[in-house]
Amino acid sequence: METTKKKIPSYVINGFEEFKEKSEWQILRCLTGMRPSGKLHLWHYVGALENRKKMQELDNVRNQFLIADYHVMGEEKNVKKTKENIFEVVKDWLSVGLDPEKSDFVVQSYMPESAELTMFLSMLTPLAKLYNNPTLKEEIRQLEEDKTKKDGWISTAFFNYPISQAADILLPKADIVPVGEDQLPHIELTRYIARQFNKKFGTNFPLPKALLWEISRLVWVDGKAKMWKSLWNAIMLSDEQDEVYNKVKKMYTDPTRLKATDPGHIEWNVVFMYLDAFCNDKKQLENLKNRYRSGTISDVELKKILTDILDELLSPIRKKRNEYENNDDYIKKCIEEWSTRAREIGKETMKELKQCMGITKY
Amino acid sequence: METTKKKIPSYVINGFEEFKEKSEWQILRCLTGMRPSGKLHLWHYVGALENRKKMQELDNVRNQFLIADYHVMGEEKNVKKTKENIFEVVKDWLSVGLDPEKSDFVVQSYMPESAELTMFLSMLTPLAKLYNNPTLKEEIRQLEEDKTKKDGWISTAFFNYPISQAADILLPKADIVPVGEDQLPHIELTRYIARQFNKKFGTNFPLPKALLWEISRLVWVDGKAKMWKSLWNAIMLSDEQDEVYNKVKKMYTDPTRLKATDPGHIEWNVVFMYLDAFCNDKKQLENLKNRYRSGTISDVELKKILTDILDELLSPIRKKRNEYENNDDYIKKCIEEWSTRAREIGKETMKELKQCMGITKY
Repeated sequence: METTKKKIPSYVINGFEEFKEKSEWQILRCLTGMRPSGKLHLWHYVGALENRKKMQELDNVRNQFLIADYHVMGEEKNVKKTKENIFEVVKDWLSVGLDPEKSDFVVQSYMPESAELTMFLSMLTPLAKLYNNPTLKEEIRQLEEDKTKKDGWISTAFFNYPISQAADILLPKADIVPVGEDQLPHIELTRYIARQFNKKFGTNFPLPKALLWEISRLVWVDGKAKMWKSLWNAIMLSDEQDEVYNKVKKMYTDPTRLKATDPGHIEWNVVFMYLDAFCNDKKQLENLKNRYRSGTISDVELKKILTDILDELLSPIRKKRNEYENNDDYIKKCIEEWSTRAREIGKETMKELKQCMGITKY
Repeated sequence: METTKKKIPSYVINGFEEFKEKSEWQILRCLTGMRPSGKLHLWHYVGALENRKKMQELDNVRNQFLIADYHVMGEEKNVKKTKENIFEVVKDWLSVGLDPEKSDFVVQSYMPESAELTMFLSMLTPLAKLYNNPTLKEEIRQLEEDKTKKDGWISTAFFNYPISQAADILLPKADIVPVGEDQLPHIELTRYIARQFNKKFGTNFPLPKALLWEISRLVWVDGKAKMWKSLWNAIMLSDEQDEVYNKVKKMYTDPTRLKATDPGHIEWNVVFMYLDAFCNDKKQLENLKNRYRSGTISDVELKKILTDILDELLSPIRKKRNEYENNDDYIKKCIEEWSTRAREIGKETMKELKQCMGITKY
């Protein structure tokens, strides 16, 4: 643990507890973004939503939750799909307890200042900073290897997205950005750009810190296609009870285990991945693992237990979601209202920036 | 002449006369942009302003004259300088007869829709289209060779500028863009992007045509540093009579000619470059060349003639400029008014685009 900590750069806060402790006496702004991928699933919950809820509960932190739609628009074949996806994301946010009274919800494209700031930031971002960004490099490499796409389809918007992300962070002058480790180069870039502007134009962009979430509850698997499929044949936050039941029923367990009395394996067992993430009673979890290893619990029984645990989490979410399910007009109105409110913050930042740069205001 | 014509792509109109003939029965929009480089000189007049005036006189063409300030902001060390430069350009435009009643004057950064559209266009612009753009490639190569700059200073904004330029063309839905030959790859890119959007989102961006100006009156010189210096120790449109006189006096003529009775050379002779460009009486010009070659006119007399010719052109411009010279408040007000008016066109385009893309309007 000590050695890991030593490698962490100084602008990184390692986990929510450390953040709470360090930030207690400051009023801070936090920005978290999400691509509008459509209905969210359980892994979104553990990976992102749960953490946002925690942030939202802090009295000293004002959160902005951004739906980053600019970069899916070009990729999405069906334009209407993007809009639908945004609606689904918002419904899920509301259902899990993200609260537009406490936090700012905003759709990126509803706030053109995001594009405008991207243009400004790109002026002081050396091209080399994008070329050498390790995360971007790796992503482009992966995209180039995707043989299903035709040559040269990587968009300039994609290449520029770290700057657009920096704009989304600097627009509300966020102090803290919760991210995964792969996003650290982007936070570093954002800090670099902010420093350039502060130095050259006398702006007062805060240099944002990265809040590295604990992801211990998420067990990622590599190279096992079947597993992936099973994992990502994902349980949606909006799934009905019987859908959850059916999906759990189809989950891969231990292919070497032929009957309930055979000793079973926990590793690479999708049901246990879910249990690891969602069973809060650690004693019960240990007990289940022991029984599985010694062949004293059937797959059927195990899956029944997982279904119950998931249902306990999902049933209040599902109940809340039903309120919005057939109410797209309401959601549409809300998105506009919330985004307009959040946009005021962005407008203010652009006004300040332009004053510092000596551009006549209009 | 025939062979040159064959190489011209189909979207290129070769010269003003051809344009006038082809466009007679259509109502067209024309976009010309200029970087805010400060006070304009005589070569700007021949290279750009004179042509704009011609375009402005056409009843069927609505012109938008754009000051492209986004990309100098990052480069300019002194921020205030950019603003001053914009003012100087506008004063020169007004002085030579560009008329905001007939044409739309607009400052790029006063119209954030330009940045917003750039963001949108970048979504459907393959990165490879920038990598392979021959003009951009050459410009980047030259910048990289500039040893006075530190490594990695080429900005992402610079790399993206062909897309930004496409946005400036598509925002007013320009049908025609007067350019030099090196800009043709950018027009080609603009047409490509417009096609992508029309195909994917059902927008109705016109595919702009390039109007290749005749530059026969401009004699460019290469590799002769002294000449360059003399050329670019340029005569400003705003120069007073005695400044013009002094600058002409210092012009390089024929270094091999020691006294007025020596036969002189016309080639690489800066005074004759100016005479070629600005002496409208071609008979007089031929006569002067003959006398110079045979050693029957002194440098002093020749320079006096040039000064008179330039003064005839510059004195009405200078007179008009004096009206604005100490009236920055008026210019500032005008720039805001004109840009706001032109911005309405851009807003309308963005509204249409967003409707086509299915993005809720706000």
